[in-house]
Amino acid sequence: MTLVLLFVIACGLAAIAYGFVTGKAVVSADAGSARMQEIAGAIQEGANAYLKRQYTTVAVVGVVIFVIGFFLLGWEVAVGFAIGAILSGAAGFIGMNVSVRANVRTTQAAATGGLEAGLSMAFRSGAVTGMLVAGLALLAIAIYFSLLTGIGNEAGSRTVANALIGLAFGASLISIFARLGGGIFTKGADVGSDLVGKIEAGIPEDDPRNPGVIADNVGDNVGDCAGMAADLFETYVVTVGATMVLASILFNASGVVNELMLYPLLIGGVCILSSIAGTYFVKLGANKSIMGALYRGLIVTAVLTIPGVLIANLLSIGFGEPFAGAGFTGWSLFACALIGLAVTAGIVVITEYYTGTDYRPVRSVAKASETGHATNIIQGLAVSMESTALPVLVIVAGLLSTFGLGGLYGVGIAVTTMLALAGMIVALDAFGPVTDNAGGIAEMADLDASVRETTDALDAVGNTTKAVTKGYAIGSAGLGALVLFATYTEDLAFYFKDVPVNFSLSSPYVVSGLLVGGLLPFLFGAMGMMAVGRAGGAVVEEVRRQFREDKGIMAGTSKPDYARCVDMLTKSAIKEMVVPSLLPLLSPIVFFFVIDLVGGRAAAFSALGAMLLGVIVTGLFVALSMCSGGGAWDNAKKYIEDGHHGGKGSDAHMAAVTGDTVGDPYKDTSGPAVNPMIKITNIVALLLLAILAH
Amino acid sequence: MTLVLLFVIACGLAAIAYGFVTGKAVVSADAGSARMQEIAGAIQEGANAYLKRQYTTVAVVGVVIFVIGFFLLGWEVAVGFAIGAILSGAAGFIGMNVSVRANVRTTQAAATGGLEAGLSMAFRSGAVTGMLVAGLALLAIAIYFSLLTGIGNEAGSRTVANALIGLAFGASLISIFARLGGGIFTKGADVGSDLVGKIEAGIPEDDPRNPGVIADNVGDNVGDCAGMAADLFETYVVTVGATMVLASILFNASGVVNELMLYPLLIGGVCILSSIAGTYFVKLGANKSIMGALYRGLIVTAVLTIPGVLIANLLSIGFGEPFAGAGFTGWSLFACALIGLAVTAGIVVITEYYTGTDYRPVRSVAKASETGHATNIIQGLAVSMESTALPVLVIVAGLLSTFGLGGLYGVGIAVTTMLALAGMIVALDAFGPVTDNAGGIAEMADLDASVRETTDALDAVGNTTKAVTKGYAIGSAGLGALVLFATYTEDLAFYFKDVPVNFSLSSPYVVSGLLVGGLLPFLFGAMGMMAVGRAGGAVVEEVRRQFREDKGIMAGTSKPDYARCVDMLTKSAIKEMVVPSLLPLLSPIVFFFVIDLVGGRAAAFSALGAMLLGVIVTGLFVALSMCSGGGAWDNAKKYIEDGHHGGKGSDAHMAAVTGDTVGDPYKDTSGPAVNPMIKITNIVALLLLAILAH
Repeated sequence: MTLVLLFVIACGLAAIAYGFVTGKAVVSADAGSARMQEIAGAIQEGANAYLKRQYTTVAVVGVVIFVIGFFLLGWEVAVGFAIGAILSGAAGFIGMNVSVRANVRTTQAAATGGLEAGLSMAFRSGAVTGMLVAGLALLAIAIYFSLLTGIGNEAGSRTVANALIGLAFGASLISIFARLGGGIFTKGADVGSDLVGKIEAGIPEDDPRNPGVIADNVGDNVGDCAGMAADLFETYVVTVGATMVLASILFNASGVVNELMLYPLLIGGVCILSSIAGTYFVKLGANKSIMGALYRGLIVTAVLTIPGVLIANLLSIGFGEPFAGAGFTGWSLFACALIGLAVTAGIVVITEYYTGTDYRPVRSVAKASETGHATNIIQGLAVSMESTALPVLVIVAGLLSTFGLGGLYGVGIAVTTMLALAGMIVALDAFGPVTDNAGGIAEMADLDASVRETTDALDAVGNTTKAVTKGYAIGSAGLGALVLFATYTEDLAFYFKDVPVNFSLSSPYVVSGLLVGGLLPFLFGAMGMMAVGRAGGAVVEEVRRQFREDKGIMAGTSKPDYARCVDMLTKSAIKEMVVPSLLPLLSPIVFFFVIDLVGGRAAAFSALGAMLLGVIVTGLFVALSMCSGGGAWDNAKKYIEDGHHGGKGSDAHMAAVTGDTVGDPYKDTSGPAVNPMIKITNIVALLLLAILAH
Repeated sequence: MTLVLLFVIACGLAAIAYGFVTGKAVVSADAGSARMQEIAGAIQEGANAYLKRQYTTVAVVGVVIFVIGFFLLGWEVAVGFAIGAILSGAAGFIGMNVSVRANVRTTQAAATGGLEAGLSMAFRSGAVTGMLVAGLALLAIAIYFSLLTGIGNEAGSRTVANALIGLAFGASLISIFARLGGGIFTKGADVGSDLVGKIEAGIPEDDPRNPGVIADNVGDNVGDCAGMAADLFETYVVTVGATMVLASILFNASGVVNELMLYPLLIGGVCILSSIAGTYFVKLGANKSIMGALYRGLIVTAVLTIPGVLIANLLSIGFGEPFAGAGFTGWSLFACALIGLAVTAGIVVITEYYTGTDYRPVRSVAKASETGHATNIIQGLAVSMESTALPVLVIVAGLLSTFGLGGLYGVGIAVTTMLALAGMIVALDAFGPVTDNAGGIAEMADLDASVRETTDALDAVGNTTKAVTKGYAIGSAGLGALVLFATYTEDLAFYFKDVPVNFSLSSPYVVSGLLVGGLLPFLFGAMGMMAVGRAGGAVVEEVRRQFREDKGIMAGTSKPDYARCVDMLTKSAIKEMVVPSLLPLLSPIVFFFVIDLVGGRAAAFSALGAMLLGVIVTGLFVALSMCSGGGAWDNAKKYIEDGHHGGKGSDAHMAAVTGDTVGDPYKDTSGPAVNPMIKITNIVALLLLAILAH
């Protein structure tokens, strides 16, 4: 193992160490009154029930794919798959476990120390998840890579490349289950418990007598926290892995393939250090701006990343041409990394504009609520569609400039740098569900209204940061499109030299592939939305049953069976996520063989390649519009609740609640799950090539 | 002029003759009581006010472009542009004028003769519009083509090709104004008059005291009828024109370029005859199924088209290879035409499934309304997204099979055959706004409830047929994508032989073009939705002003100033449509020059080409989802009003009204305007090539 690899692994371990130390500090904080702890305990109990069922099911699928992979592609791919799957699951598990403990402590901190203390507690718990996600992802790749090269494989060999693809596949597979299952769970619980509790039983939101209310709070943790953590773990692994695979393919003959494969890992390593440093700068300033505090941390991280990447260059490729005729220099790759930072900054600023309560879009949705449910929805949909334009232009600018500077590898380095900030970005995101839960606990435990006001202020910012993460994750997929596609074409050239594949837009197979790929995100999005409807229905029935069979629940004399409700919802979510998850898994395979049948092998390869781009093109728009639109609806409601347009209880508020509910499956189920869906479609295509070549 | 051209022109004249005869029969029918005629007169007055303003504005834009075109590209292009623009406007003008007269006569027919008579009146008025659209479109191309060749131009010359592109551009430009302006008008009126009338003043829907209520009815005519007619005229001209241009480019050296250019015109001619025949089969059967009656007409048309195309083959290219080494025969082109019919049938059936009250999707939206506004919207959005999948698969199957049979020209023939049915399809569509108006008149004139029931039954079918037309128009754009793109690439090869343009998906310029093209329909859709919101606001203020300044209106003693309200809304709609209309007009130009600056000429050509496909790929999904989703919401409301889930006035009905309102700008403003938007982007790119080459 080289010194460089040791440095990378040390950075990964630093992230884990940060997670343990900060996690311990969070857990040892005051957890509040017995009542608060009782509620938090119920949420935690529910979370465990969910994990048990989800991991049991996912394990079965995982074992089947492990065995298939083992026999079709060898142990290296299968073990890579297992590592990716297990660590992706672990990232979600840890994320959820931290946040179910941090929620009540945030309530208590807000109650005793106000905004400053609440912010600090919620953010630190998010940072634990963030650092563990980034650390585990970096360690997984670095250690498996050194293991494979340590036992004699060349860094640029197919064995190593395929093993890294296997690793990415494992991460993606768990991630789509976690995102979709978690998303269906959380929004099914949200919609379902509201319907029976508020409408049928006439009890307020967040009332502990409602057997579904704990599931609702569990949902925040399993969807927004565990699902998000698994998703970002996957995005990190796929991006860094694909950039390494690309380097191994493009530079195999260069003599410095090892250095060029390690460079992305080094960027990941130094960014962990800058992210850790950044977390210490998240503090409320004189202007009491929560977003300002979070931004300070992010900006410090970004600024510190600049010397960090310089160090990465020093340690590996230097600043000149890494090899004769490379067509790029160390300086130009450094510039690509800076562009990656700029794209991240661009997406953050744009997403804040579209989902923050201070700007036109959210305010226009709030204003439109004055004239009813329909105008709220119309304006929200318009905002959601409009919000796709600027991020896409930023992505295109990033794509063209990095390609110009460093070719495909330059694009890969930019995306790697984006994802290298994942520790900090996830920290900002995981902050959201914690504050959401904290508000629920404050309400249920009958704390002073000022506590709820504090947590609501944090929660409103959380809605924006959640949207930011989703925009960032999907944006990286858009920018990484060319990297993934290039990996596909290079693989094709490697395995099937003799098949004349035509990727020109004037081929009908290419157009067909673009269209069929394009329909996947729409169909997938529709399935997710409908699944939420059905899962919500299952909750309605379970809650009705409990009310019917135990009259003591409504009287407040007996405790509802929270765990059973959570378990039912888990079952329903797991069942509902199967078909949508199969869509990206099977579509590339089915489409390939159909076109193979009608047009032959070369046509099938072009059509499949175009499908990969088609799914990215429409997926980018579907995901961006859903995530930003949902965030805008949510915050428009918050803006009204802050006393605008009539405030809480007004007609405008009723309309805004409708918009918020519509935005729920948009931003928390279908939208974010599009990101792993795109990756799975791409990775399945890559594995299909490897299998066909065997 | 050849015999074939004379035959084509005779077919076009037959359509015009049918329009005049049937139109006369419609107009001479009983127009009902004085009260009904008074209401209808107000609608007609409003329609004239709209036309006056719209054509004044459009004329200014048209003259400017005419002059620019004249100096940059010569008189042939400029005159073509003028013909396309004037006839597209005429198609809309006639369509609206027929339907503002047929509405009250349909009410009267339904009142005196029941369903059978109402259906017959509404359908015949639609058929007038349909035949005039198809006839004018065919005549425009055929006559201008014979004129150009008559004065000595070769059929396959650039002059003729560019003149046809100019003709298509004129049609598209008016069409986007008509679709967008009409869409903003109709939905602004709908939303605005409901808001003041129902919510503020507390008067029922369709109450003649509401100054906005006539604008609402005018809107049905200017949006759904005039806008749709201009749109279909444009789609027809662009499709047939592009196929002819493609033939002129591909077969210039073949010796039979004339025959291959006339073949699409012949298909257009024979289909007019089969469409006219089909209209006589639209009669209510024993089962009283309205949809069944309309389908009978459509099926007869489709069946008669088969021998018609055989005749077209006989008259031009025969059944063998049209020239040595053509790679296709007359029989295979015949098969392509049949596939065009099959694609049309597929889209009709799928759209009916997604928007008809008899099937799962609409019923699921109705069922979801039981649990509130939000669940109605969630389910509606899910249905709208899901509804894109099957049409796209049908389009892909059509694309691959016709390309296999007849190459690019085969694809063009299939799309031409689809559009050749426009006479019949427009008849089915124009039927919708007439029945919608008829219902409003029945309500306002206090006719027996049974009359409204009859018109409502017709209107529910109208919602489906309207969605069918939109799906058909946008579907043809999807299938025609390759034809338009091929025209672009062939033009490129013709004008810029020396520029090495790369359309491979692995070029970053191609990926950028796909993404930037992809964002246009989203941004355009968002603009349309927001414009409806603002136009609605303008109506609210005008109606409030009239109520305030003339107390006699509410008392029923003085007549509100309908025309002023219509005029205001027209102004607002015209103003609002400018920026969205500039989007497809300017984007290709700006994008081309930006890429030219950063990547050079070859990169700019690839990026622009990819942009054309990008706008088609996402545009197809955006338009299909908006049109079907809107139709599903509308009919879910109708289904509930028919007595399901609690019927009129129930909570489910309230939720369904919300869904219907959201669906309005979806299906009647943004969704359908995407179709001309795609075309304009493509045609501007073609003209840009011609200008750059000059």
